Amino acid sequence: MLPITKQQWTLKARPQGIPDRSEVDIETRTIDHVPDEHLLIECLYFSMDPAIRGWMSDVPNYLPPIPIGDSVRSSVVGKVLQSEADGFAAGDLVVGTGGWETHGVVPAAYFAVIPADSPFPTHYYLSALGAVGLTPYFGLLRAGKAAAGQTLLMSAAAGAVGSIGGQIGKILGLRVVGIAGSDEKCQWVTDELGFDGCINYKTCGDMETAIRDACPEGVDLFFDNVGGEILDAALMNLNKDANIVFCGSISNYNATEPVPGPYNWWQVLARSVTVQGYLISDYLSEFPEGQAQISEWINAGQLKFKEHIVDGFENTLDAYNLLFEGKNDGKLMVKV
Amino acid sequence: MLPITKQQWTLKARPQGIPDRSEVDIETRTIDHVPDEHLLIECLYFSMDPAIRGWMSDVPNYLPPIPIGDSVRSSVVGKVLQSEADGFAAGDLVVGTGGWETHGVVPAAYFAVIPADSPFPTHYYLSALGAVGLTPYFGLLRAGKAAAGQTLLMSAAAGAVGSIGGQIGKILGLRVVGIAGSDEKCQWVTDELGFDGCINYKTCGDMETAIRDACPEGVDLFFDNVGGEILDAALMNLNKDANIVFCGSISNYNATEPVPGPYNWWQVLARSVTVQGYLISDYLSEFPEGQAQISEWINAGQLKFKEHIVDGFENTLDAYNLLFEGKNDGKLMVKV
Repeated sequence: MLPITKQQWTLKARPQGIPDRSEVDIETRTIDHVPDEHLLIECLYFSMDPAIRGWMSDVPNYLPPIPIGDSVRSSVVGKVLQSEADGFAAGDLVVGTGGWETHGVVPAAYFAVIPADSPFPTHYYLSALGAVGLTPYFGLLRAGKAAAGQTLLMSAAAGAVGSIGGQIGKILGLRVVGIAGSDEKCQWVTDELGFDGCINYKTCGDMETAIRDACPEGVDLFFDNVGGEILDAALMNLNKDANIVFCGSISNYNATEPVPGPYNWWQVLARSVTVQGYLISDYLSEFPEGQAQISEWINAGQLKFKEHIVDGFENTLDAYNLLFEGKNDGKLMVKV
Repeated sequence: MLPITKQQWTLKARPQGIPDRSEVDIETRTIDHVPDEHLLIECLYFSMDPAIRGWMSDVPNYLPPIPIGDSVRSSVVGKVLQSEADGFAAGDLVVGTGGWETHGVVPAAYFAVIPADSPFPTHYYLSALGAVGLTPYFGLLRAGKAAAGQTLLMSAAAGAVGSIGGQIGKILGLRVVGIAGSDEKCQWVTDELGFDGCINYKTCGDMETAIRDACPEGVDLFFDNVGGEILDAALMNLNKDANIVFCGSISNYNATEPVPGPYNWWQVLARSVTVQGYLISDYLSEFPEGQAQISEWINAGQLKFKEHIVDGFENTLDAYNLLFEGKNDGKLMVKV
């Protein structure tokens, strides 16, 4: 099998703003060894996640920065070609943290085997059965302490996480109001997904007022993927003892200078708010439980989701940047 | 008894920055009626708290803004002259939310009777047995989930709340590092109060580095009274799953334009931090428990605290502004 020639998207420099090919570009490398406790995998799908942008920068984060010269880090689905770890065999389909590369040598500890009898397409394990579904599942139930009867405000509501999160909110008995960037997106989450309301932040005028109008009883739970002005407007509409699940801050990921935190920070104190910094990786041991529940909901037709799959390894960077242009339609992945 | 002529410090205009006598000034009023469920009190002590500055402004807060034309709102100790409420009698000493005024007609619901057999001076009920002691007590134990062995970082460590909070932290078995604004204050909290360390933020150079040096195992619990740059520096030193008790933000109270939240806001997510917006009033029903425990610690000599009592009703505003100049030495009160 070895040596294998692979292609990878190498991080060549820390990006300024939206990454371009002077910063992230294709290189060819050779794999000639698989150490103990590692797997050689052929990559089938890459997950395009906003969080990757953070790892490209040299700032303290929950994972170390991607080293210059390494492949860009990414969740991937792959097929095991050679296993040097117990619990994995050649031919297994696996999901875990790898890179934007055609083939990879990866620590087995970062990967899980996709059940051979799974009735779902493998790429579901990067979407509804992966972080996209598990993130709102544990975010709402654990970090956000969601309870029936509450009002849930969901930013990036038409995004992969937000759209599934809002539906989970409805299943759990919450009133769900979304925030999205077009009338079409708003119509999709209300008419197709069953959200109780949705605010088009590009046309709503004053956001604070728009949230107040859409949430006349105030907001008990704000699931934030966006940060910035939307967070500030949400803070002014929180009920006492509200919870914020701080899941992401996509409005700031490409900033080229320090970004101030929320101007309405004081409202966290004034309303006895709990802000929970939230990482799905804190719930790894509970993934099987979450996947079982989400599978049930999918099979029962209670969860709808879109996938946007771009074909071709060479299109990875262009595909990635669709995220920041808001041009993806559903959970964005690359089919290698 | 009635009518009585009283003097009060009237809020005449919303202050810009540190309040002056064009905004807060003495006026004379007449009291001629005590409604049902109210008390007529003679005020004995006013509590000088940073929070009062927030109530002077017209921004959403946990209490409504002080109406223009009303007495400045304040915690007070007083003596009941006439009671129109069950549970209170003329002659009782009481503590609660009143105003900067020589006499007041106050809702009985905002007041509690000081036990007639209390062995402590009445002004203790505005300091160690009042919010100054109860704030760190419930803040550490409830909001902050303090546990033995953790590292506690306390801002405004030589202040009324911070100095008692650090001592409670030590009693509970935490390692306690303070932040204060002079070498004398630092020496007091380490040598007299038993803190494990203290950073002089005026001379320490880079604050982030100074905290790292003083907390080599990172910070598990940050009790924040100050906000601003200190909060930003603390965020860079938090351990995973750390707690922030957001108790105050004195660095911003006199700002005349919108103040950005923490620039290092992302670290809340990256480190799975819980930020708890904290109001002592959320724990009203537990005050007797807290006062009993604090009384025990005082009697056992385990809690030291300073009181700074300014004499004279007419000196109230000058006394108040000592808070923002960092010139008070201990819990600041006015003896009417």
